[in-house]
Amino acid sequence: MKLEQLIQDVFARINVNLRELALDVEPYFQYLDADKLAGFYAFYGISPQHPLNLHFNVSNLAGSFFLGKCAVDHAVVYKSDIRGDELKRKGEVIKHDHYTITMLHDEAIRIRYSLMIKTLVHNFSHDPENPEEFLIQNTVSTYFANIHGSSTEGCFIQPFATIDLTTAHDSLIGSFAYVQVGEMDHLNIKPGMIWVRGDAFEFKYCYPQQVLDQYIFFEPGQRPGGLLMDFIDDRKTDFQDVFEVVMRKDPIPIPEGAALDRYAVVKGNTKISKNVLVAQRAYLENAQLGPGANAQENCYIIDAVLEGYNVSAHGAKIIHAHLGEKVFTGFNSFLNGKQEAHLKIGANSIVMPHTIIDLDEPVTIPSESLVWGHIKNKKDLETHSLSLEALAKINQEITLGDMHFKGSGAAFIKAFQERIEHILEANGAYYDGNDADKGHAQKNRKIAFNTIQSYQEGELKGLCPTIIIRP
Amino acid sequence: MKLEQLIQDVFARINVNLRELALDVEPYFQYLDADKLAGFYAFYGISPQHPLNLHFNVSNLAGSFFLGKCAVDHAVVYKSDIRGDELKRKGEVIKHDHYTITMLHDEAIRIRYSLMIKTLVHNFSHDPENPEEFLIQNTVSTYFANIHGSSTEGCFIQPFATIDLTTAHDSLIGSFAYVQVGEMDHLNIKPGMIWVRGDAFEFKYCYPQQVLDQYIFFEPGQRPGGLLMDFIDDRKTDFQDVFEVVMRKDPIPIPEGAALDRYAVVKGNTKISKNVLVAQRAYLENAQLGPGANAQENCYIIDAVLEGYNVSAHGAKIIHAHLGEKVFTGFNSFLNGKQEAHLKIGANSIVMPHTIIDLDEPVTIPSESLVWGHIKNKKDLETHSLSLEALAKINQEITLGDMHFKGSGAAFIKAFQERIEHILEANGAYYDGNDADKGHAQKNRKIAFNTIQSYQEGELKGLCPTIIIRP
Repeated sequence: MKLEQLIQDVFARINVNLRELALDVEPYFQYLDADKLAGFYAFYGISPQHPLNLHFNVSNLAGSFFLGKCAVDHAVVYKSDIRGDELKRKGEVIKHDHYTITMLHDEAIRIRYSLMIKTLVHNFSHDPENPEEFLIQNTVSTYFANIHGSSTEGCFIQPFATIDLTTAHDSLIGSFAYVQVGEMDHLNIKPGMIWVRGDAFEFKYCYPQQVLDQYIFFEPGQRPGGLLMDFIDDRKTDFQDVFEVVMRKDPIPIPEGAALDRYAVVKGNTKISKNVLVAQRAYLENAQLGPGANAQENCYIIDAVLEGYNVSAHGAKIIHAHLGEKVFTGFNSFLNGKQEAHLKIGANSIVMPHTIIDLDEPVTIPSESLVWGHIKNKKDLETHSLSLEALAKINQEITLGDMHFKGSGAAFIKAFQERIEHILEANGAYYDGNDADKGHAQKNRKIAFNTIQSYQEGELKGLCPTIIIRP
Repeated sequence: MKLEQLIQDVFARINVNLRELALDVEPYFQYLDADKLAGFYAFYGISPQHPLNLHFNVSNLAGSFFLGKCAVDHAVVYKSDIRGDELKRKGEVIKHDHYTITMLHDEAIRIRYSLMIKTLVHNFSHDPENPEEFLIQNTVSTYFANIHGSSTEGCFIQPFATIDLTTAHDSLIGSFAYVQVGEMDHLNIKPGMIWVRGDAFEFKYCYPQQVLDQYIFFEPGQRPGGLLMDFIDDRKTDFQDVFEVVMRKDPIPIPEGAALDRYAVVKGNTKISKNVLVAQRAYLENAQLGPGANAQENCYIIDAVLEGYNVSAHGAKIIHAHLGEKVFTGFNSFLNGKQEAHLKIGANSIVMPHTIIDLDEPVTIPSESLVWGHIKNKKDLETHSLSLEALAKINQEITLGDMHFKGSGAAFIKAFQERIEHILEANGAYYDGNDADKGHAQKNRKIAFNTIQSYQEGELKGLCPTIIIRP
């Protein structure tokens, strides 16, 4: 079977890239079943609002979604979301330091000899060196990893890891690690490491191993485990219902300027307001989303209120919580309030990517706070939060619990807030009927979804034919 | 909206082709709603058993199915079945009279500037003049018409008409007409005309207008009407259920060598035997299909038993009936037995294409009969059937009721029986595990179905992007 051979070829390529680590990735994927891969359909979106140019060749695309310009060759892409709706266009000018670069042609995502499992790729791309191509080559990326704005080559990205606005070469990114460091080469990032580095600041926090092990672990020979995997597995069948039908009717009213992806789960008493974006594979249950709020891919918002203009980044989980306006919840954060241990977060607060707030008592986080790491109760806040006001005053460095910050707190806050504004704008949170302000929420209202299955028998079982889609 | 313009362009091209008839086809399609067309998904089949090369360009494909090699340009194809699984392959040698022609390349279906509505195209192609291309150009074909093995150019094919093994140029084929006459040029075939012409024989029957009007009529400004349309409309919602799900589980056991298309409706106590082929959009309700029997596209088999090796050609409807072995039911025939007026047809009988048996008393047709035309009761059999034995003796001509036959009855029977054998073989009715005997039933067991939706908004609403699929 050619698919099995292809998978072996990909492993060999990754291992060569990571040879300094003497790492064999294959044992991590023993549970991968080529027959099973053949059973899922992939799909792609078409709309006049998005660039379109897709090219699939000798690949398995099981359950994956594609939007925008993208070429996939000799890759196995399993239930991953490849969202190319922020690709740069021909003629666009990008600035980096004092350089300006004009795009020679439209940017495209290129996935070659890669194995991606339930990975989210969203390409507000960042690499100034090769701005026309968003490259993912010889890369293995696993469950609920995020590749956000980041070219990667020869990387092994473990479950729930995020590489964000970072170009990475030949690196190993451990489970639940978050890196946003500009450029990365031959680095081994340990599991649970949260590392943000800018020109003027650096933030570092690392989860204690025994804490991390409760939430996510990944060992050769088995599927990843831990509370995060359990949480997702418990809600799997709801998604099966959504994926079973060809065209779904809107389960709730969709206000003006809002978009509810037809592959999102909606349950209970859920309401969305104007300019809300609910992306594919988001999960809403008894969720109230105020104006301009978003629930990005793989988000779970359950028994929660988001007042408005909230960013819930890819993979964020918000349960039994009340979030004030403009609260930002970073990638893969797990805000696990309970009925008897409710979470409240005040306006304009920033929940760092990969934060775990798993409460055993009610907790209120004041407005304009920065929070990170592992928080179970009020006391944990002392070592896992700072007011933005206090942070802004830091110019040298500070250590608080397992967190170490150096550089300019004000610059760090500014960079974060600018990015939040960019995300809100890009998602259409501020749309008021003016075409120029249209964002994803407005552009994603009427996407047509076409499906792709692989060959169901013979040598090519599990592989798709060559498919080219152009405007 | 570009789709509306495209539809107008197609009308103009047809009208030019049919200018001798001073016919304007547009009023026949006033009920055609471009917005509605945008709401249906098309789909195509891929499997290693079938040639694959599809090319869709500036077309609306609403609800249509494609299998095999096919290029569609500037066409509107609405819920039509384009089944290219009998396309000739490169190197194949075809014989015509004393000529032999070697195929220079694989045959392909080409649909250009055409409007096809619920039309079945199945291409065991026949035209010796252009054997590598199965052309349907500037053609308008309507509800439940069959284009079977026939290139057409500039034709207007009305509802439930069949052009079979015939090349047609600039012709008008009336409702429920059946033509199998080799080559046809600038002909106007009146509704209800059944016309088969071979080298050594000619069969002609024409339905009285008042009979035909009960079953099918087609007037400018309205959708086609009559009992045949009502019959199909009454069962529409069952198909909606089938088309709503992405992947359907088998509703009944599928024996060895048999294929039940996942877009067929199965209801009640239905059983199929080995080597049975149930094609797409077939409808089975309390149906028993013996070994090697088939139910081709748009067939309805309801409260009926088919003993085995039965051909139920495209669009055949068989209700409250018992058919002996090898009974052949021709295209679009309507065998409408009732509980109190059961129909029994003995083995090896041939029901001519477009026969209407609509009973008001029980009727038994003896084995080895040929039947045609409109039969309501036993008495009608006198003028609408002949034993094959009696037919074989005819050498000159015979008139029986509205039927006129001239030429060799034996040659007519031989041609028919050879064709029935070809159909059974092609469908895999005789498969016994030997790869060389595989037919459609064996090759169509594991087809993957991919879906295509058109743009859902903007200027291109209703049109598909350019899509190219290659092996």
